[in-house]
Amino acid sequence: MITVGELLLSRLHDLGVRHIFGLPGDYNMEFLDQIEAFPGIEWVGSCNELNASYSADGYARLAGIAAIVTTFGPGELSAVCGLAGAMAESVPIVSIVGGPPVRIMEQHAAMHHSLGDGDYDRWVRVGREVTVAQTSLTADNAGSEIDRVLCAGWLARRPVYVRLPGDVARQRVAPPSSPLIPPEPAVDPKQLDAFVGAARRLLADATRPALLVGNLAIRYDLRDLVNSLLIDRNWPVATQSLGRGFIDESSPHFVGIYNGGDSLEPARTAIEGADALVCVGTKFFDWDGLFTADLDLSRIIGLNTTSSSVGEDVFPSVPPAAALHALYGIAPAREADWEVTIEPGPIPLDSTSTAPLRQARLWSAVAAMLRPGDVLVPETGTPSFGVANFHLPSDTDVLLAPLWGAIGYATPAAFGAGMADPDRRVVLITGDGSLQLTVQEISRMLATGQRPIIMVLNNGGYTVERTIEGAHQPYNDIDNWRYAELPSMFARNAPIDSYVAATEGDLARVFAGLSGRPDRLTIIEVRLDTEDVPLGMPRWGKETTALDYQVRMSMDPPRLPWGGLPEQTAS
Amino acid sequence: MITVGELLLSRLHDLGVRHIFGLPGDYNMEFLDQIEAFPGIEWVGSCNELNASYSADGYARLAGIAAIVTTFGPGELSAVCGLAGAMAESVPIVSIVGGPPVRIMEQHAAMHHSLGDGDYDRWVRVGREVTVAQTSLTADNAGSEIDRVLCAGWLARRPVYVRLPGDVARQRVAPPSSPLIPPEPAVDPKQLDAFVGAARRLLADATRPALLVGNLAIRYDLRDLVNSLLIDRNWPVATQSLGRGFIDESSPHFVGIYNGGDSLEPARTAIEGADALVCVGTKFFDWDGLFTADLDLSRIIGLNTTSSSVGEDVFPSVPPAAALHALYGIAPAREADWEVTIEPGPIPLDSTSTAPLRQARLWSAVAAMLRPGDVLVPETGTPSFGVANFHLPSDTDVLLAPLWGAIGYATPAAFGAGMADPDRRVVLITGDGSLQLTVQEISRMLATGQRPIIMVLNNGGYTVERTIEGAHQPYNDIDNWRYAELPSMFARNAPIDSYVAATEGDLARVFAGLSGRPDRLTIIEVRLDTEDVPLGMPRWGKETTALDYQVRMSMDPPRLPWGGLPEQTAS
Repeated sequence: MITVGELLLSRLHDLGVRHIFGLPGDYNMEFLDQIEAFPGIEWVGSCNELNASYSADGYARLAGIAAIVTTFGPGELSAVCGLAGAMAESVPIVSIVGGPPVRIMEQHAAMHHSLGDGDYDRWVRVGREVTVAQTSLTADNAGSEIDRVLCAGWLARRPVYVRLPGDVARQRVAPPSSPLIPPEPAVDPKQLDAFVGAARRLLADATRPALLVGNLAIRYDLRDLVNSLLIDRNWPVATQSLGRGFIDESSPHFVGIYNGGDSLEPARTAIEGADALVCVGTKFFDWDGLFTADLDLSRIIGLNTTSSSVGEDVFPSVPPAAALHALYGIAPAREADWEVTIEPGPIPLDSTSTAPLRQARLWSAVAAMLRPGDVLVPETGTPSFGVANFHLPSDTDVLLAPLWGAIGYATPAAFGAGMADPDRRVVLITGDGSLQLTVQEISRMLATGQRPIIMVLNNGGYTVERTIEGAHQPYNDIDNWRYAELPSMFARNAPIDSYVAATEGDLARVFAGLSGRPDRLTIIEVRLDTEDVPLGMPRWGKETTALDYQVRMSMDPPRLPWGGLPEQTAS
Repeated sequence: MITVGELLLSRLHDLGVRHIFGLPGDYNMEFLDQIEAFPGIEWVGSCNELNASYSADGYARLAGIAAIVTTFGPGELSAVCGLAGAMAESVPIVSIVGGPPVRIMEQHAAMHHSLGDGDYDRWVRVGREVTVAQTSLTADNAGSEIDRVLCAGWLARRPVYVRLPGDVARQRVAPPSSPLIPPEPAVDPKQLDAFVGAARRLLADATRPALLVGNLAIRYDLRDLVNSLLIDRNWPVATQSLGRGFIDESSPHFVGIYNGGDSLEPARTAIEGADALVCVGTKFFDWDGLFTADLDLSRIIGLNTTSSSVGEDVFPSVPPAAALHALYGIAPAREADWEVTIEPGPIPLDSTSTAPLRQARLWSAVAAMLRPGDVLVPETGTPSFGVANFHLPSDTDVLLAPLWGAIGYATPAAFGAGMADPDRRVVLITGDGSLQLTVQEISRMLATGQRPIIMVLNNGGYTVERTIEGAHQPYNDIDNWRYAELPSMFARNAPIDSYVAATEGDLARVFAGLSGRPDRLTIIEVRLDTEDVPLGMPRWGKETTALDYQVRMSMDPPRLPWGGLPEQTAS
């Protein structure tokens, strides 16, 4: 016999969990004792629960899955935003909540961390809104319920909610008879046949087929299948912002980022001009062109979580890997007649310049600083716009959450990424406003020996919001912290490299000194003018103003359903 | 005609809101523009939304009501924990969420900050779990809905949820015909008569009547009514932890803090030996003696939010003020035969001592440092136990949230208190672990010119958790920050007084220098041994272990219903 806690840990380990984030709280500490004792899984304390959830998100994007432990009430509710983000962005996180003992809940006793009203389903109801499966463990149900919820989360690549009451963690259950194999989505051969038939009709006369990839292509690890199609059939490909890092952006097949009417011309032409467009794990929403994409649904083949679509017809139980296999067989070869975005190549910064640094120069310099294999974490806002201005080096993973769009995500996510893969260089680019939400996780980077490069773009406030509304309003101003010195407060003895770059020359010298991977945490405060923004942001700001406050209702009626492709709308 | 946003602001102003906390986000900035333009209400930016909700809680405890503005999705979800805490602790906060335009929601379009599934009731469902009333404003319903939810929150002293879609804020509505008068709870004369009859029977033969006060006594501002009863009828009174600061603790009527079996003898004798006990706005939960209170329900008169009880009989629509008025008329006078806790008087610290500072000496020194009129904010954990060890100076307000028990609350709450009443000295006592959750709000204190005294008890981790489980487990360890220097990172030019006190002599000298109210923010890192804890905590830790993990199920069956008094159980 083993304990319920050990059973849960062994199943998490089977799926690839090697670290668990979170905070101790009464109700969860017997489980924390079990984690400390469990070989192969390490406890990683977080400074607060929101940060734990963001760290888990960053971790899962590299490791495939993550887990957090919080405590009933204040702990779990502080993590709700991060779990919702993982729902939106399709990131599997197992949220384990230490709950009051079963008998206490059955008696509806008024306990601390509750509203005192005896309602012990209240926080489960909240959890239901931000996870795809939920359970409250007992010794009797653990053998089946743990596998049920873990598999549901794994298949959907979305978070799940596991309540582990304080008295249940150490109760005894039978050990599992075999390891938990990560489940594969079901394939219905008849539906697959029907899908192939429909896709074949669409592809038959296609001379300008193209691919568009979104984040589910990353989550379902479809890189080899997609690359085969690109290369062997010679198709062009664009990526949504959600899908950055999936495609080798130095490839001649890569035409750029597609986000509807805001796309640069080569990407727009290849995608909107395609007579058959295969959308691999895409999501369409307002900021990526839902209202401005000039796409004809009847020409779209969509590959989603568990189903695929051709035009308006959805084929259930045709998951993306099976669909891509099939498409490979029927995909026509294409002439290489598309245009690619011409990368000007990195413009070297002038190390003697004393001119204020401008965004027009900054992003090219960042591009030149990045190296193949980096993990790039650009915060939503100025950094996410900035990194849209250049092609990534090969094998770059990008942690970006544009659908959820929560500022504050990037710093804890970068910490999580550093736990998942300590051998890679993590480059975190955040804004001053964003950093202030979740700054304390720099402390955990230092304590665990991480050596990220942290760029803090100090432009005196929420610049991304200024482009939407209130350019000069005080509500977009923030306090001017000593960003470069701040990490030294979080550790008494850790060596840190700190820089302030106000001029082009400053940044040139700092970047020149970053030969390869620094041996310590490096923070660079990059001073920028309050109103200087990256390319693309002003237009986006105007569009968002129009949409948010309906100054004018957007544009033409959308050519796609309101949720994007058919299955997404239904989900 | 005025705008919907202006109408909302004018009604908030009528109820006493003078500051609004929160963060800008797209969807809420037109409303923020309206706040900036509104005379009499000031926007106060927060570093993140959880902190905004805690700041609002602290503000409302002094000002009577508070408001926050967040944005749909990430913003509002980050504040959920703080709103839940305000629900538990009965603190009225108006949570205003800038939402997507009405037409977008009706179309179920996939927008950023959503799950992309077109479900625009999802976060409202979350809000329903942490507020007593909810609305989504339109120009048509604003005239009635604003008043409905504000009044519901005011009457219940609990948070409410107001969704203000981005396009609705500037739509035109009729101005109100009269100011919003804070509503009083309804009184049913027949129920009041019945209550008085039942109370009279209980009080008729009482020779040892007593009072116990909880937090609703503070929220409903019953101080004069309670004091009349105490003084004119000569009764003893104890306070729950929830109710600290309500009773003048130097009064001869004050017998101490009552928390069931953990109470000191004078309080236990007076409360458990009472033959008629009037409970004014109390809540019973595990940490305040739900399982150990030796109370006979048949001898209890309970005054709650809108009803009162005598024994098991509940009298609806007999709110506490009406009940207290009535009780005054029928309350018997008592002999002053109770014992009071003997305060040893402050033990002066030895300014020449180089011995490590011990908790046994610390709290008496804190007691001596406090002055009448202070706002004391002791974080849940070591500080909340510490302040239970001494009597408060008169007119001290105490911001303590023992039912919700969320660490991290105190720092933003202290900031909120400073906004509500800048003329008072705020003394924040927090732990190192707790501070790390929400440290950034010190930045806002500096930016707004606040001058709190901040004591950070640095004992290397979550000491309160160590007394429950894992005394030597790494999960209770935290990173050792440079606490005293940290505030200087949050402002480039603000003067700050920083101290580190490791010995008794150190602290003696620091406290001696704090003559009255410092003219700048003062932070004191107080170094304490990891295992040194305040009086009462070890026993509490053992009890909590037993309860949380059911090592032994608690004690005798409770004499009170599981939720405390009858109305609370039903709520």
